[in-house]
This record gives sequence, structure tokens and C-alpha cells, in this order.
Amino acid sequence: MSDLKALFSPRSIAIIGASRNPKKIGYELVNNIITGGYEGRIYLVNPEGAEIMGIKSYTSVKLIPEEVDLAVVAVPAAYVPDILEECGEKGVKAAIVISSGFREVGNVELEERTLSVVRKYGIRMLGPNVFGLYYAPSRMNATFGLARVFPGSIAFVTQSGALGIAMMGWANLYKIGVSTVVSMGNKADLDEADMLDYFVSDEETKAVLMYIEGAKDGRRLMSSLKNITLKKPVVIIKSGRTEKGAAAAASHTGSLAGTDRIYDVAFRQSGALRATDFAQAFDWVKLMTMQPSPTNDNCLIITNGGGVGVMTTDACEEAGINIMPLPEDLQSEFKKIMPVFGNFRNPVDLTGQAYEESYYRALELALKDNRIGSVIVLYCQTAITDPVAIAKAIADASEANKCNKTVVTSFVGGAQCDEAMRKLDEFSIPSYPIPERAVSALAAYYRWQRYRLMQRSLPLKI
Amino acid sequence: MSDLKALFSPRSIAIIGASRNPKKIGYELVNNIITGGYEGRIYLVNPEGAEIMGIKSYTSVKLIPEEVDLAVVAVPAAYVPDILEECGEKGVKAAIVISSGFREVGNVELEERTLSVVRKYGIRMLGPNVFGLYYAPSRMNATFGLARVFPGSIAFVTQSGALGIAMMGWANLYKIGVSTVVSMGNKADLDEADMLDYFVSDEETKAVLMYIEGAKDGRRLMSSLKNITLKKPVVIIKSGRTEKGAAAAASHTGSLAGTDRIYDVAFRQSGALRATDFAQAFDWVKLMTMQPSPTNDNCLIITNGGGVGVMTTDACEEAGINIMPLPEDLQSEFKKIMPVFGNFRNPVDLTGQAYEESYYRALELALKDNRIGSVIVLYCQTAITDPVAIAKAIADASEANKCNKTVVTSFVGGAQCDEAMRKLDEFSIPSYPIPERAVSALAAYYRWQRYRLMQRSLPLKI
Repeated sequence: MSDLKALFSPRSIAIIGASRNPKKIGYELVNNIITGGYEGRIYLVNPEGAEIMGIKSYTSVKLIPEEVDLAVVAVPAAYVPDILEECGEKGVKAAIVISSGFREVGNVELEERTLSVVRKYGIRMLGPNVFGLYYAPSRMNATFGLARVFPGSIAFVTQSGALGIAMMGWANLYKIGVSTVVSMGNKADLDEADMLDYFVSDEETKAVLMYIEGAKDGRRLMSSLKNITLKKPVVIIKSGRTEKGAAAAASHTGSLAGTDRIYDVAFRQSGALRATDFAQAFDWVKLMTMQPSPTNDNCLIITNGGGVGVMTTDACEEAGINIMPLPEDLQSEFKKIMPVFGNFRNPVDLTGQAYEESYYRALELALKDNRIGSVIVLYCQTAITDPVAIAKAIADASEANKCNKTVVTSFVGGAQCDEAMRKLDEFSIPSYPIPERAVSALAAYYRWQRYRLMQRSLPLKI
Repeated sequence: MSDLKALFSPRSIAIIGASRNPKKIGYELVNNIITGGYEGRIYLVNPEGAEIMGIKSYTSVKLIPEEVDLAVVAVPAAYVPDILEECGEKGVKAAIVISSGFREVGNVELEERTLSVVRKYGIRMLGPNVFGLYYAPSRMNATFGLARVFPGSIAFVTQSGALGIAMMGWANLYKIGVSTVVSMGNKADLDEADMLDYFVSDEETKAVLMYIEGAKDGRRLMSSLKNITLKKPVVIIKSGRTEKGAAAAASHTGSLAGTDRIYDVAFRQSGALRATDFAQAFDWVKLMTMQPSPTNDNCLIITNGGGVGVMTTDACEEAGINIMPLPEDLQSEFKKIMPVFGNFRNPVDLTGQAYEESYYRALELALKDNRIGSVIVLYCQTAITDPVAIAKAIADASEANKCNKTVVTSFVGGAQCDEAMRKLDEFSIPSYPIPERAVSALAAYYRWQRYRLMQRSLPLKI
């Protein structure tokens, strides 16, 4: 594991193939590493030895006067083996090979030659054919994607480089914080299993989101998954589920998508959570990085609208979340804080006349009761109440009654609800514009939690 | 049908229970009708005969000197029968009874007395216990929800008033235009079937979105559905799917949710499309109001990213959309407009280097070919291309090659993609932030289209 330190937290980086032409990847890389705020030493290498963005270039990595931990390589494919040979002689420990034109276009021989060079020198290589690695803890943006990313605790591992770039944009737009964005490319050396092994003990990463089209070594991937999912949730999008999808995957990354059913079972047995699309995957990891996992099976719904209460109940039932029958003593407690026409069963319906005070007291009751493991708080926009004030009350109640229950929210309505949800997210209380998305995230968290509990009571079979 | 003209397009409205207290529903109603831009005559009625917002009030509807088509009633429940008696004597043709406190709280007798009054005078009544009716063609906002709504061609019919208010906000936030928002409440007189019958020939309504918890008269609802779905798509969210959900529905609106399976079959047989949540429902009607329905089963995917192409293929396969094998002549045409390493099968992968020109030419090829019935255009954010310019190219190609194919798009990425999608929506080319949502909408459109074609070749059984 420690051999990936040079990849994730290098003390110095050489960008080989650095360019002063803003349309070139070799320029984007320099620009992103500098503007990303990387604090280690940066060296540039290009044949002309030109100065780029105020930094002098060397004509060879071997001429760099100090040690180089990581080489980022963006030169034409044919030059890559020689460049890596030089890196090896220089003592470089890790390489990110951005260059494409290898196995993915049929150049198997070139890829194997490249691999034999890095193996000879013990260099760990990401790629070839990757868009790079962004790692927030090192403030290192060694990608040709967006220059700035919202830092956080989700590690995003993707087989598709294009998706990686798109996801950096997506994460920024929805203010989803990522610890890592890493593109796997052809996986000649490092693959997803290596990444998972690294994230097990990476303190900045709380959850992993992975897009794969096919695994190189299924058994090893499963073993790494089994290991990490005991500590951290892993959400996987595996495409190529259908016959035509698999055919498309084969012509995209050359992956053998394999029988989908096998992946399904393998993921389940390894405690990984399979999502159908990445909006869903992001919904799930958002909850998992913001809230503790549920401590028991009993879920309580608090709402101000009957309709959303019914929808949420349906979604919970279908997803295997237990809407607990409310014990009588709790019923009487809730009765005290709501109008006579409210409903003190589960869903607890505070009615459309519920102001911030009602929400505060209802959530407080729920958080203080040990029989409850998770709470879904719903708000349906009304003409008389203020969603932002109610969001604040939910955050306050949550802050004042810190506990290890899982709280999710959904605010259904217009612009004010949107503002309220942004506020909740800031307080690490995840919110979703429709209840079904909150339920889907909570259900995934429950599945992971149940898996972990089962693993603890049984001998580990890895 | 024509007897609902007084409800949807009254020449004059009396608001009975109008209030000058901004916290009262009787004030919200006056405010919304005035600021909504209603151009007919407005009369106010309240016991004090006070002036409200510059309009004089009458102490009784009977004292209004001119004819009143529609009465909007917001007085305490107990007074409602007498108020409607007066309306009947005055010759009022339709009434919206906002007041609650009837069957939904066990006051069955009061509701039946109210119904007998409107029956006696032939008044058509919406309610009681509704949040009102917004109807864009009349610029009539007779609700206590939001004052302004984005006008458009979706009719939203909801059993839950709270959801109606929330959905008005939602529609505004996502710039979804609605022709109607109507809350059904206790359905003492008018119910969903009446609304559907009205929308059949309502030129401003292109699609209906309905939230119901249970039907009063299932057979009649089915008959109305069968009738309208021959002309316009109807998307239904029916909650109370599960046992606990049904129990929650019973305590919310007193609906007998019934065996869900029966609803499922009934909706399918009537050509209605059942959505699982309202985000999905809005996704579907967005496509259906913007684009013509697909003319044949063959779908073509155009993409700049292999990953999203694979995901979309999977989603299509699972949803029953036929990803057509591309005929050789079309393959050669596509080959001409893409880089050598592009993929001219289906999905057609223009590669990450596809600029606006490539998109324009690829979409043009697809739109000009009669073997293609629908097109899914995907864009995955890259470091070098401009999503807004590509959106423009898609809109231009679509405008220059007007045809009856269905076009949907998905732009995956950050803020620029979001901007690009807003532009596409303005050009009536529906776009979605993940491909799976575009596919889900297209699949629903196909299901409706197949249903209609089947109905045409068979004798209609209504």
C-alpha cells in the first residue's frame, strides 16, 4: 500500500510533455497542477526546454537536479517506453501515463513493452490512456479536467476518462466534495483493486464511488472490495449490463463486460452497493459521507404533508426499510406537539400548519429515543410556512441532540425549498428534492450496514 | 363537458370569505386572482362588507348586481351549505369549495348536505377541501398556492392539495410550464374523470400528470382514461402501492387505496403511464409536450463519450427501446464525419474531439433518414469542447431538418452543461442531466405510442 504514496502524495512531480500551447493536454496539466495549489516541487520536461508559465523546462527528466517522486507523462505513445526508461534510471517511483494509443487501439505490443519497463524499475503506473489523478489532500490536480474541484470525502474511481471529467463538473455544480478523482484507463499496472486497497486507510476518504465496464481480475477486485467494505461503503456503477450494452463496452474500452448476473452476485457478496446510474450513486454516497450509518432497523418519518408521507412509506416498504409501528408512549409524546387533526402514527404528520417549532420538537423526540435508528424528515411547501426557517430548526435539533442516528431529509417544492436544502447540506444533513431519492440512499446505507453486521458474526471468508 | 366552462373560464368570479388579513386563505385567494392577471370581473363577499385590496365587498353573493359564473368559497365548513344555497339562488354555475372539515375529518353528513345543495341547483363543485384551481388560458389563479406559475401545456391533477402547492413551486423552479393545477380534495361532485373529460378537447393541454391515492369510481376513471389517452398522454402517480403506504393513504385522504396490482393493470389497459415518483413523471411529460411521438421503433444514439454510450445502451435495452443495428450505407455516411478512431455503429461515437460541426452533421444525417424513429443525443463534458455551442448546433440541426422524429438529449457534466440544457429546453428539445432520465422518458413515450397504434387496429372497447 505504501508504494502508492508516491502516486497520491508525491513530494515532487515532473510533467513530461509539458506544453506552452493552451490547446494541448501538456499545457492543461501544468496549469491544473499549478492552479490546483500543489505545494510540492514541480518540474517540467519537454524537448525544447522552453519556459512554461514561468517555470523552466528540462530536456530530459534525467537532467532534473533533485529527486522526482511522480512523473506525469503526456507524450506520443511511441515515445512512452523510452521516457519511462529514463524515469526508471532517474529513480522515479510512480507514473501517470496520460498518453493514449496503446491496447485500446490494438497496440498491445507497445503496452506490454511499456509495462515491462515499469516492472523493471519498480515504478507503479496509472494508465496508459488516463485523464489523470486528482487528490484533494495533496492539493494535486494531475488531470486535464477542470482546474478546480470541490474538496470532500468521496473517492471517485472511473474506467472512463471522459466520465471522470464530466463528473468533476457535476460534483462542482452540485457542491459534492471529492477526495479523489482517478481514471483507470487501460490498467496495465494499477487497477481498481489497488485503488481500493489504498482508500482503506486513507483518512480523507469516507466512501468510494466506482464506475467500471469490466474487471481485469475479478477475484482480486472482490477480495479488495471485501476488505474495504468492512470499513467504508463502496458504490459501484457497472455498465454493460445488457447484451447490447456489453457490445458497446467492448468497443469502448475493450472490456469483456461478462455475464452481468455474476457481477451482481460478486458485488453483493463483497458488500459493495450497486447503483443503476451515477445520479443515484452520488445520492447514496452523499448520505454516507454526511451521516453515521443506522444503528437499528426502525425508521421514523416526520412530515407536514400526507401525500409525501404516503409516497415515502411506499418507497420505504419497497426498499426494505422498516417503518416502525409507533409505541404508545411515543404516540402520546408526539400528540402533545401537533394539532388535533395531525397524525401521531408513523408517518408522523405534523400537518401543513407545522412551523419550525413543531419540526424542532418532533425531531428532538425522535433523536432522543433509542428505539429509533433512522429518521426521514419531509417538508412539502405550503403557503404559510418558511422552508428555510424549518431547515434551520432541523439543523439545530440535530446539533443539540447529537447521536448516531441517520437523518435524511426531502424538501418538496420550489426555489425556497432549494435554498433550504442547500442550507441542510451545509450542516451535513443530506437533502433531496423528492422523498424517493432520500429513501433510496437510506436503503442503500441499511444494506451496507446489514452486510457489515453479518460479517462480524461470521468468520470472515476472504 | 361544456358545463365545466364556468369552472375553467368563468366570465366572473365571486370570492366568498375574502379577507383583508394577509395570513388568511381568504386573502391569498384575492391576491392570487388579482396578481395572476385574471381579466374577468371579480367580486368579493364577506360578512363585514369591507374593502380588500381596493375592491369593495358585498355581504352576500345575492347582492352582487351582475351575473356570477364561479364562486370560490373559503368560509368555515358549517356555513358552506347555506352559502351554496345562496349561490344557487343567485344562479352561480360552478363552485370551488376550499373549506375543509368535511368527510376527511369524519363529517360525512355535512358533506352530503353540501352535495345535495349543489345538486339541487345544478352547480358543479370542486371540493370541498381543495387548494383550488389554476388555469393558465384564463389567467385564473384561484388557489392559495404561489401567486405566479410558469404557463405551459401540462395539466396537473392532484388529490393532495399540499402536493399541488409544492408542485407549483417545483414547476417554477425547473421552468416547467403548466396549463392547469387542480386539487381534487374530497371529490364530492367533480372527480378526476371529469377533469380528464375536460382536457380531451382543451387545446392548451398537451399532457396530463395526475397524482391519486385512490379512485372513487374506478370504472368511470378507466373509461375517461381510455378516451383521453387516444389523443393525449396521461402520466399517473398512484401512491398507496404497499400495505403500509395504503394505510397511510387511508388516514390521509380516507382513500381505499385498493389492491395495487388492479390499478397497475387498469392503468395499462387504459393507456395511462404509471410513474414511480413525480420527478420521473415530470421528466416524461416534459418530453411529451416538447416533441412529437416516435414514428417507428428504431432508436439511434449519438455520443461523444463511450462510457455514457454504454450506460445509455443498457438503459434502452432494459426499457425496451430498440437500438437499431446501423445499415451499412448509414455507417459509411457517419464514417465520413468522424475521426478514424470514432465508432460508426450504434451508439455512434463521435469521440471527445467532436465539436459543434460534428454534432450538427450527425444529427442531420439521423433526422433525414426515415428508418430512424427517435434520436438520443449525448454529450459528456470534455476539456476542449463547448457544451453551449454544441447545444446550439443541436437546436439548429433540429430546426433546419424539421421532422416527426423524437429527439431527446442528455448533457453530462457541470455548470456549462446545465446552461446548455437550459438552452435546449428553450428550443423545445428536452434535456436531462443523466442519460437514464432521457431514456426513461423516451421509453414511456414509446409505450404510449405502441398502445395507441394497437388501439387503432382493434375495435375500441371502452
